[in-house]
Amino acid sequence: MPNPFFKHDVLSMKDFSREELELLFLTSDKISEMKFKDRVSLGEGRIQGIMFFEPSTRTRLSFESAMASIGGTSIGFSETKTTSLEKGESFADTVRVVEANTDIIAMRHPMEGSARFASDVSSKPVISGGAGTEEHPTQGMLDLYTIQKEKGRIDGLRIGIVGDLKYGRTVYSLIYGLSKFDVNVDLVSPPTLKVRKEATLGLEKIRGSNNTIEIKEHEELKPLLPELDVIYMTRIQKERFPDEQEFEKVRGSYYIDAEDSKIMKRDAIVMHPLPRVDEIRPAFDNMPQARYFKQMQYGRTVRAALLSLILNP
Amino acid sequence: MPNPFFKHDVLSMKDFSREELELLFLTSDKISEMKFKDRVSLGEGRIQGIMFFEPSTRTRLSFESAMASIGGTSIGFSETKTTSLEKGESFADTVRVVEANTDIIAMRHPMEGSARFASDVSSKPVISGGAGTEEHPTQGMLDLYTIQKEKGRIDGLRIGIVGDLKYGRTVYSLIYGLSKFDVNVDLVSPPTLKVRKEATLGLEKIRGSNNTIEIKEHEELKPLLPELDVIYMTRIQKERFPDEQEFEKVRGSYYIDAEDSKIMKRDAIVMHPLPRVDEIRPAFDNMPQARYFKQMQYGRTVRAALLSLILNP
Amino acid sequence: MPNPFFKHDVLSMKDFSREELELLFLTSDKISEMKFKDRVSLGEGRIQGIMFFEPSTRTRLSFESAMASIGGTSIGFSETKTTSLEKGESFADTVRVVEANTDIIAMRHPMEGSARFASDVSSKPVISGGAGTEEHPTQGMLDLYTIQKEKGRIDGLRIGIVGDLKYGRTVYSLIYGLSKFDVNVDLVSPPTLKVRKEATLGLEKIRGSNNTIEIKEHEELKPLLPELDVIYMTRIQKERFPDEQEFEKVRGSYYIDAEDSKIMKRDAIVMHPLPRVDEIRPAFDNMPQARYFKQMQYGRTVRAALLSLILNP
Repeated sequence: MPNPFFKHDVLSMKDFSREELELLFLTSDKISEMKFKDRVSLGEGRIQGIMFFEPSTRTRLSFESAMASIGGTSIGFSETKTTSLEKGESFADTVRVVEANTDIIAMRHPMEGSARFASDVSSKPVISGGAGTEEHPTQGMLDLYTIQKEKGRIDGLRIGIVGDLKYGRTVYSLIYGLSKFDVNVDLVSPPTLKVRKEATLGLEKIRGSNNTIEIKEHEELKPLLPELDVIYMTRIQKERFPDEQEFEKVRGSYYIDAEDSKIMKRDAIVMHPLPRVDEIRPAFDNMPQARYFKQMQYGRTVRAALLSLILNP
Repeated sequence: MPNPFFKHDVLSMKDFSREELELLFLTSDKISEMKFKDRVSLGEGRIQGIMFFEPSTRTRLSFESAMASIGGTSIGFSETKTTSLEKGESFADTVRVVEANTDIIAMRHPMEGSARFASDVSSKPVISGGAGTEEHPTQGMLDLYTIQKEKGRIDGLRIGIVGDLKYGRTVYSLIYGLSKFDVNVDLVSPPTLKVRKEATLGLEKIRGSNNTIEIKEHEELKPLLPELDVIYMTRIQKERFPDEQEFEKVRGSYYIDAEDSKIMKRDAIVMHPLPRVDEIRPAFDNMPQARYFKQMQYGRTVRAALLSLILNP
Repeated sequence: MPNPFFKHDVLSMKDFSREELELLFLTSDKISEMKFKDRVSLGEGRIQGIMFFEPSTRTRLSFESAMASIGGTSIGFSETKTTSLEKGESFADTVRVVEANTDIIAMRHPMEGSARFASDVSSKPVISGGAGTEEHPTQGMLDLYTIQKEKGRIDGLRIGIVGDLKYGRTVYSLIYGLSKFDVNVDLVSPPTLKVRKEATLGLEKIRGSNNTIEIKEHEELKPLLPELDVIYMTRIQKERFPDEQEFEKVRGSYYIDAEDSKIMKRDAIVMHPLPRVDEIRPAFDNMPQARYFKQMQYGRTVRAALLSLILNP
């Protein structure tokens, strides 16, 4: 299979077929077994532009660590106060600045469509590291890779996605990714934070999708816990609720604590894109199903694989 | 010719002769043709200190990218809030901190004379990346290199410099650089933003200058457009004007739009140190004379050449 | 001697024996004589996580420069505004983010116990770059190294430590380090800023300490100056004093100026962890006893040695 990632943007999970994702996973496996002296040839002399218009430690460090792990360098900014946007420069010109000085751009921006717009301006490949509430495709990739590695397969699993499904961009990338596999997806959220219709309506139109994803919506988490193979928790943000009482009620039911481990399948896995606040209690960290830290570690590997596929033919 | 840049500071365009600038351009040509595995020997193991007391994306990324492109590393700061200046440390001591941990310093500071002061304190070479309204020598170097590459020569050209000529530091470095060549320079600005006398009065005193630069001043841009080989636009900042009405009047006449392309010489080039706001309309970006993005790309090459000349005998 | 630093944390000077410190000094000597092409094997492919919750130029740049000097890369953050702590993430989870993406962590935090807490969470080695008013162990190491290099020995010296001994964390690391040698220590401070009892009370309990440190406390600096072999100045911060008058009085007596050079021993050395404000006047910088800039330069070497010892067996 020729490398379909070479010189391509990564803007949406919709753009990648199952075969392409599987190539990425295979490359991730290989990269994690390589020694640095071999990996270095994949990124040596290459510069990654970090263009983060929103605060992020996790995603930024993961991209920077991934690039360093294949011998490359990262430069850029992670807040807009020190950029020329402050002097009235247009977003397009700012993209051109980063493009002129780098070989590949990893960007995060609070607006929907921002990554696609940047990719239109830039002649260098653009990887979205999160665009508004829209998508966070590399998170989706590492999420699928985590399932593949920790469960041995994706097909045939029952996967619950829990929390703020309306505004959580990682949720959309995950659903688009899962739609290329044969899975059952249970969406669990309060009524006001249900998944946006765009996510489920368009599934049949997603590239290369000739499989059977089944999606159901729920409002209660606890009854589902014994059924799920994968429990994907997300953070619910206070500012999404009109009043505090409503928020407290939701917060009181969408969480996982140590005792929930007993009613889960023994070989279920619990994931979270992080950062978490209350929705997975620290006591759960030692339970056998906890995988969210391992998931974060896979992020570095998957991003290193992605960078090396985009940078090398 | 022995390398006159080795271990030297870069504080003012006045300090460099035509021959030295031509050596820099030649080195830039060579560097842009080298592969990374050859370039890496020029900067490997060297550390560039980034000491930016003023916000800047373009210049900072350009220096960092240049250093990475020859195998070196950059460390430092690009805002003063996280530095010990906040604890009352003197500027001289802050310079010593950066000097102690690096091999070469690239600095930007809002005060005139700051780069020269830093170079007095530091035993490591200091490159000014902009000092107040005084100068921005590496911008001047990449500006001249752009003219040389895009027009094939500098001698004999008619060059218009437009906008805020009083406070725009790039203007001074450009004029000092052009003064080593045989050119006609047209300075175009509103009366209140005319070039400071220091720029033109001192030309005969500039090192190695035995050529004929002719300088004229103008207030109107449009009548000049058909005559110029190079049109160098600069940003006019609102805060330079006592009242808004005056600013709007100026803004309304010192700009270039798509239709101006037709009245320009076909092989004229339009340059800008960037960031731009209104003075070059986005519609002009696709016109054949637009070179400001290419100019920015040359910046990385010229700075890589400069770093390698300063770091290696 | 097997390398006792390998994979170990650096949290307190109390944890290191005299023999271990001497190994570190020996390694520092070696590193400073090595060429980059040899040093590079010590850190190549390794990533240092910079986790600085407090502003710092000096210590951060020193760690970054040290890592670069052995071929490694640094990533991280130096202020908390761009981190997920802002989104309500726990400190433990933030440590896990950095740990997942790096091989070793250098951290600074305003709270006592923070570095030890991070080391409990992290499976990667943690080096404290300053924890509250508690300790700053790598500063203590470079301070001892400076004395060893500049005086040729540590045993038998009379060492004055001057200034804010109550809140100055470097003071504690220095005293714990000196306690492994045979020295006389004179502590000089205003009554309200005397050293905390923990520093002197616990000396007999410090690991591997079977030597004779003698400690005396003083309130006046000038009478001691002719007696001391090492004069270690520290900054006194205005905010430590209830009223301005009290502060001015102290500031007026705890400083060193050019003329003090004459009453000091000719071969005495004056040190300071920096940043300084008033306590060493710039005029003293040219006096033969001034060593605080050299001390800062040694910091890079000692940290490079420390990193290479922790990263390599």
